[in-house]
Amino acid sequence: MSQQLLHDFIIEKHIKAALEEDIGFGDITTDCLYTDNDTMTAYLNTREDGILCGIQVFEKVFSILSGDVRVTRHANDGDEIKKGQRLATVTGPARAILTGERSALNYVQRMSGIATETNKYQKAIAPYSAKITDTRKNTPCFRYFEKYAVKAGGGRMHRFNLSDCVMVKDNHIRHAGSITKAVELIKQNISHAHKIEIECETIDEVKEALNCGCDIIMLDNMPVDKMRECVKLIDKRAIVEASGNVKLDTVNEIASTGVDVISTSAIVANAPVLDLGLDI
Amino acid sequence: MSQQLLHDFIIEKHIKAALEEDIGFGDITTDCLYTDNDTMTAYLNTREDGILCGIQVFEKVFSILSGDVRVTRHANDGDEIKKGQRLATVTGPARAILTGERSALNYVQRMSGIATETNKYQKAIAPYSAKITDTRKNTPCFRYFEKYAVKAGGGRMHRFNLSDCVMVKDNHIRHAGSITKAVELIKQNISHAHKIEIECETIDEVKEALNCGCDIIMLDNMPVDKMRECVKLIDKRAIVEASGNVKLDTVNEIASTGVDVISTSAIVANAPVLDLGLDI
Amino acid sequence: MSQQLLHDFIIEKHIKAALEEDIGFGDITTDCLYTDNDTMTAYLNTREDGILCGIQVFEKVFSILSGDVRVTRHANDGDEIKKGQRLATVTGPARAILTGERSALNYVQRMSGIATETNKYQKAIAPYSAKITDTRKNTPCFRYFEKYAVKAGGGRMHRFNLSDCVMVKDNHIRHAGSITKAVELIKQNISHAHKIEIECETIDEVKEALNCGCDIIMLDNMPVDKMRECVKLIDKRAIVEASGNVKLDTVNEIASTGVDVISTSAIVANAPVLDLGLDI
Amino acid sequence: MSQQLLHDFIIEKHIKAALEEDIGFGDITTDCLYTDNDTMTAYLNTREDGILCGIQVFEKVFSILSGDVRVTRHANDGDEIKKGQRLATVTGPARAILTGERSALNYVQRMSGIATETNKYQKAIAPYSAKITDTRKNTPCFRYFEKYAVKAGGGRMHRFNLSDCVMVKDNHIRHAGSITKAVELIKQNISHAHKIEIECETIDEVKEALNCGCDIIMLDNMPVDKMRECVKLIDKRAIVEASGNVKLDTVNEIASTGVDVISTSAIVANAPVLDLGLDI
Amino acid sequence: MSQQLLHDFIIEKHIKAALEEDIGFGDITTDCLYTDNDTMTAYLNTREDGILCGIQVFEKVFSILSGDVRVTRHANDGDEIKKGQRLATVTGPARAILTGERSALNYVQRMSGIATETNKYQKAIAPYSAKITDTRKNTPCFRYFEKYAVKAGGGRMHRFNLSDCVMVKDNHIRHAGSITKAVELIKQNISHAHKIEIECETIDEVKEALNCGCDIIMLDNMPVDKMRECVKLIDKRAIVEASGNVKLDTVNEIASTGVDVISTSAIVANAPVLDLGLDI
Amino acid sequence: MSQQLLHDFIIEKHIKAALEEDIGFGDITTDCLYTDNDTMTAYLNTREDGILCGIQVFEKVFSILSGDVRVTRHANDGDEIKKGQRLATVTGPARAILTGERSALNYVQRMSGIATETNKYQKAIAPYSAKITDTRKNTPCFRYFEKYAVKAGGGRMHRFNLSDCVMVKDNHIRHAGSITKAVELIKQNISHAHKIEIECETIDEVKEALNCGCDIIMLDNMPVDKMRECVKLIDKRAIVEASGNVKLDTVNEIASTGVDVISTSAIVANAPVLDLGLDI
Repeated sequence: MSQQLLHDFIIEKHIKAALEEDIGFGDITTDCLYTDNDTMTAYLNTREDGILCGIQVFEKVFSILSGDVRVTRHANDGDEIKKGQRLATVTGPARAILTGERSALNYVQRMSGIATETNKYQKAIAPYSAKITDTRKNTPCFRYFEKYAVKAGGGRMHRFNLSDCVMVKDNHIRHAGSITKAVELIKQNISHAHKIEIECETIDEVKEALNCGCDIIMLDNMPVDKMRECVKLIDKRAIVEASGNVKLDTVNEIASTGVDVISTSAIVANAPVLDLGLDI
Repeated sequence: MSQQLLHDFIIEKHIKAALEEDIGFGDITTDCLYTDNDTMTAYLNTREDGILCGIQVFEKVFSILSGDVRVTRHANDGDEIKKGQRLATVTGPARAILTGERSALNYVQRMSGIATETNKYQKAIAPYSAKITDTRKNTPCFRYFEKYAVKAGGGRMHRFNLSDCVMVKDNHIRHAGSITKAVELIKQNISHAHKIEIECETIDEVKEALNCGCDIIMLDNMPVDKMRECVKLIDKRAIVEASGNVKLDTVNEIASTGVDVISTSAIVANAPVLDLGLDI
Repeated sequence: MSQQLLHDFIIEKHIKAALEEDIGFGDITTDCLYTDNDTMTAYLNTREDGILCGIQVFEKVFSILSGDVRVTRHANDGDEIKKGQRLATVTGPARAILTGERSALNYVQRMSGIATETNKYQKAIAPYSAKITDTRKNTPCFRYFEKYAVKAGGGRMHRFNLSDCVMVKDNHIRHAGSITKAVELIKQNISHAHKIEIECETIDEVKEALNCGCDIIMLDNMPVDKMRECVKLIDKRAIVEASGNVKLDTVNEIASTGVDVISTSAIVANAPVLDLGLDI
Repeated sequence: MSQQLLHDFIIEKHIKAALEEDIGFGDITTDCLYTDNDTMTAYLNTREDGILCGIQVFEKVFSILSGDVRVTRHANDGDEIKKGQRLATVTGPARAILTGERSALNYVQRMSGIATETNKYQKAIAPYSAKITDTRKNTPCFRYFEKYAVKAGGGRMHRFNLSDCVMVKDNHIRHAGSITKAVELIKQNISHAHKIEIECETIDEVKEALNCGCDIIMLDNMPVDKMRECVKLIDKRAIVEASGNVKLDTVNEIASTGVDVISTSAIVANAPVLDLGLDI
Repeated sequence: MSQQLLHDFIIEKHIKAALEEDIGFGDITTDCLYTDNDTMTAYLNTREDGILCGIQVFEKVFSILSGDVRVTRHANDGDEIKKGQRLATVTGPARAILTGERSALNYVQRMSGIATETNKYQKAIAPYSAKITDTRKNTPCFRYFEKYAVKAGGGRMHRFNLSDCVMVKDNHIRHAGSITKAVELIKQNISHAHKIEIECETIDEVKEALNCGCDIIMLDNMPVDKMRECVKLIDKRAIVEASGNVKLDTVNEIASTGVDVISTSAIVANAPVLDLGLDI
Repeated sequence: MSQQLLHDFIIEKHIKAALEEDIGFGDITTDCLYTDNDTMTAYLNTREDGILCGIQVFEKVFSILSGDVRVTRHANDGDEIKKGQRLATVTGPARAILTGERSALNYVQRMSGIATETNKYQKAIAPYSAKITDTRKNTPCFRYFEKYAVKAGGGRMHRFNLSDCVMVKDNHIRHAGSITKAVELIKQNISHAHKIEIECETIDEVKEALNCGCDIIMLDNMPVDKMRECVKLIDKRAIVEASGNVKLDTVNEIASTGVDVISTSAIVANAPVLDLGLDI
């Protein structure tokens, strides 16, 4: 399986900042009690079922603190993991392991939480071809990790930020005068390499959006029946994205309408962290 | 009421990074549809009850994008807010408001979510003197905002990081040989300006910790009866902190034992974001 | 005319780094000869015909050096300017103006050079609907300014970087086995918000790419006759981009084939700087 | 002996900035006279007696410039060193050694100077249990190194910055109305993980501070007799810190009063650099 | 041949920023089509004659992306290279090579372009002792690389920035009252380690500059005859620099006047990139 | 009097880092005791005679913390100040003033200390034309401030770093074979904009250096008699710099030899901080 990459040199910068945040002037407890010669073996275990994500980040935290820490992976990003399962073995200088423990866990718990939540949604729509995607409702300065976790959980990513896909919302439309006028203006300006997505609330808007030759139509907060009607109407001439009121117990019905994509902030913004621990 | 401060020059650096993350090469939708002369008024409203937090950050997002945006606050950090309530009015260049909307909301929703969750826990123990505190289970590089939100929600902060308070955990104790030996080593090394906290699982450990002259005793995952016994035993000679298995429906009973502090990662790591929106 | 924006807080960071690069430990000449009280008026003039670009950056250089410099614009980005024309008047502290002069010019000369070159290409194809775009052949760490200059010159931007549009090249195809296999793999993975562009060298490849449902077909280094044939074949079912061997004296014929987009690195990588000067 | 750590990834960032400061556009002398193949052996020697500090930083300077430099330590941080003693042997590319020489020495000379000065003060009070600590009177952006050097010289560190210990000074007290009122307000707000220190100038203030249950009482600029009286009065109910007018010839008498801690900026702010040289 | 160095830790910072600029949230094409196990060999070839420059930067781009890429150099910076010549072999993970390709080429093409252009100018004056130098007309934030490329092409560098050499221009002179008064003021202030250069437009100015004891006299935009006269007049009492209107077809005659240095922005600001490609 | 400038945008970056270092997660004392509405007036006074330096930095510290702080200067950089003299009045939000106090003082005390020490040396040689200069023995990452302070104290600056002046030392000479060979190699490589300084220990070396046409001859650790002889020998054909064993009680005799420059690290590395205080 090929996969979205986390570039080491990019995460390194983030992790160093996180470690400075957590270490301050030093781990005054560990520094007093251990010497540079003390070594230790620790095990990353999960205390819950879920999807693992962030094992590369977990490793990197320790390798920044000491070149002598060795991490052996027993599971990989995207793997289903079961309560009690050993995920990785960490061996090396005790100081690096104890000082890095919390930061390493903070990354892997949060990323695994998102992967796990995404996976629940994706599984809930398994019989259908629709794909779960995230939104831009992210933790500031943490999006690179969160987007990756969505992918690891079996979801797809939506646009990365404001510059890689046009998204015309209600305010934009009102300001331009109509969907048609908005798309016209946009087509005079944007790169041919970018898609245009239009947020539609009514069937008339969907029709207008289709006529403009947009690439993606987002059905915003529509009842399931109306969605179904729109999917039929659009008939593969644009990608159809459902958005709004997406919950674990509503998502299957939404998928059943034949939409291509279901986007929801729930898989990132409200995903509980996965309970992982480092046992020594 | 005096309050923990968010320093403007510190949050500015974070927000600029978040905006670069979200803007990339430009908000290609808004840039096509609006000119520099278009203005707009938008309202920050809440769609849920909760505690507001992050209004200063919300403002700063827009002021970084344009010196011409004016934000009028109708509520302040720490205020209880009710579903439908207007929290702020934002007026100014449409481009700045639309481009900054998501980032501004990402901060204030998450911070308000944490403040709201903290407040629920704090209220749940209202009759008792105990205080709810967070832990170091934070989002990497976001702790400054999260700690502040805990405070805004009526909680207290625990140590900021590894350098401002000694925390002796089971591994440390095992390595040192005993609590007594650990504390001895620590006292030979640390600053007199820092406290020593010992994590205890048994009554014998509590007794030993007390004898060493530590400042804080953490009762780690103890049943409520045993906690009560420990509180009596300690008898104000050290601050007592309860930790482990703290939930909204268990926290009151824990507080009833007379502990001084109840620490839990639940108020930060698993707090759902508060549903706020910018209506234009 | 609405336009791509340069965000002030983004260019500010770049300009500060450029000024540190050029100032080092101080402008030892100006610092000796002027005091804080000396003021000056200077005029930005052009010594060549061209398209102006970067006037906001020009202003920002001085405002970083002193809050007391005032810049009055006599022309704006995208304007055609004529040899000898006055473009801006700069008034304020002499130290700030003299110390910033070279850096301010370095930005505006280079950006205007790119805008001017782009404009020549765009004008050369005026009767046709094709649009000139740049490539990723940029100066490292200067792309934000270069992309903007292409736009100011009347061109369009191609994808911003590796993450906002799929571009399948010969190596990718060979590795995947075929265009069809490559697109299949990609569709299983990428965001629905991103387009797929396929680089084609033969008519068979163009046919295969069309069948896969790609969004953009790049005709790579094709003779003009073959291009024309491909345009007919594609018949609006995909955007057609011509690339390779694009020069000022070949571009018109390329445009005459009916392609939608002509991409070339010449407008950025080899654009001569426009000769502007600050006369005092 | 366990010891405060300098984290490699933290000092690396600082050293790179220092090297950029000193190298500018290149070491134009060495670059002309040596090739990449020239190697060299150099010896770090001390020209004065003192305490070594910063050997890890010294090494790191060279390893940033070239992965081929090898440094062998003949002494370690905290060691007493004698005039003429060889402290380290540096072997490797001549360019890296010559270009890094001054920066490497700048760190180790200054850090050893602080360690040496601290040690003089600590030795001067040897018969007593008091500990010498530094203050916040540091070189801006160099505190991490200076605090470490104080520790290496046998001193203790005071609070790291404004956030890890409350320090109530005369202005705070005046503003609050009284020590009692100030402490009350503070206790309603701060983390249970932080101590409260009160600066006292009179015996009445000491009494009031004791009654409030503060953790540390600082005797500010008191005559030695009064200090002695306060120590008796406090009688181990709080840590006692002496501050003000601490000099090498007064510190012993101050220590004789029985205070726990003697804080002074002299060991950092006015410590002369230790005369070390790199002999080739 | 000894040579100006590019410090690895300095270019690393720049390259990481360039890679972040180009990678954004990931190379979405390559990431879909390759796995971590795919390897590849690629060849850096030149499609034009010229001077190679930037091979160390080229290597570093890949090594930042993966520690497993191996680059074998077949030519070095400063070497004359011929159309079709293989310059380097790159072997390793396909993802790192494909993702880094464009950024690596962007550096080496631009640097080689500058080296090649410089070399043309230097060769054009081969019979004479004069040296070609650059100016401060650089790409913002790219000067370190551009200055190095000038050197690799056989040129010399002019001052690095505003702080390493005094350069008195017409405005400075007018403001001071005369060359004599300007130099007087400067000599009262500057470091003895820095030279003074005076820009002269007339023979009288040259005489005055000589009398002041300046180090370098720049003949600004003088006709060749007048230059020759000035060189005689100056008679080795100062370094003579020619500037203005320096082109490939005028530079030889300028050199024939006996000037020591010919400075021109043409070798950097307008040097076309050298056409290099990575063939896989 | 014209003067070396401190660029605001450069010091701002440094001060923000220093404030983050000192503030950490907040000034927990002041934040508890003051509200945003509390204001305060404070006075910067000197408790010693000396030379003031750093008043602009002092102001900037407060203005970063709050736009509402007003600083009125009663003295300027370079002014002689007398024990007890009021130097500045600071008015504004109490929180900003109290939180910034220590950092503001750390800059101004250290910079004034250097200016004061430099001034003592410069005054000690008043009858002679020699100028006191610093060396590269600086505090890492603090050189910009230290160089400026030397200038404010009436001294001159030596080269800023390794790239703005060639300095040939004994190791360089040994490696090249002779002074003559070293200078030859250097002249083939360096910019015409940079000077060459040769460190000489014997009269023969001085003669050789003179013959090579170097710009500055440093007499390294020579006895005063030999210096005098060298000055005569050199006879204005090069700038003469004395170095080594420069102390307040030896510097006058050194100056009496007729050397042009006396360089010493004592004025920076060992300058005691000037005792300034903020009285409220």
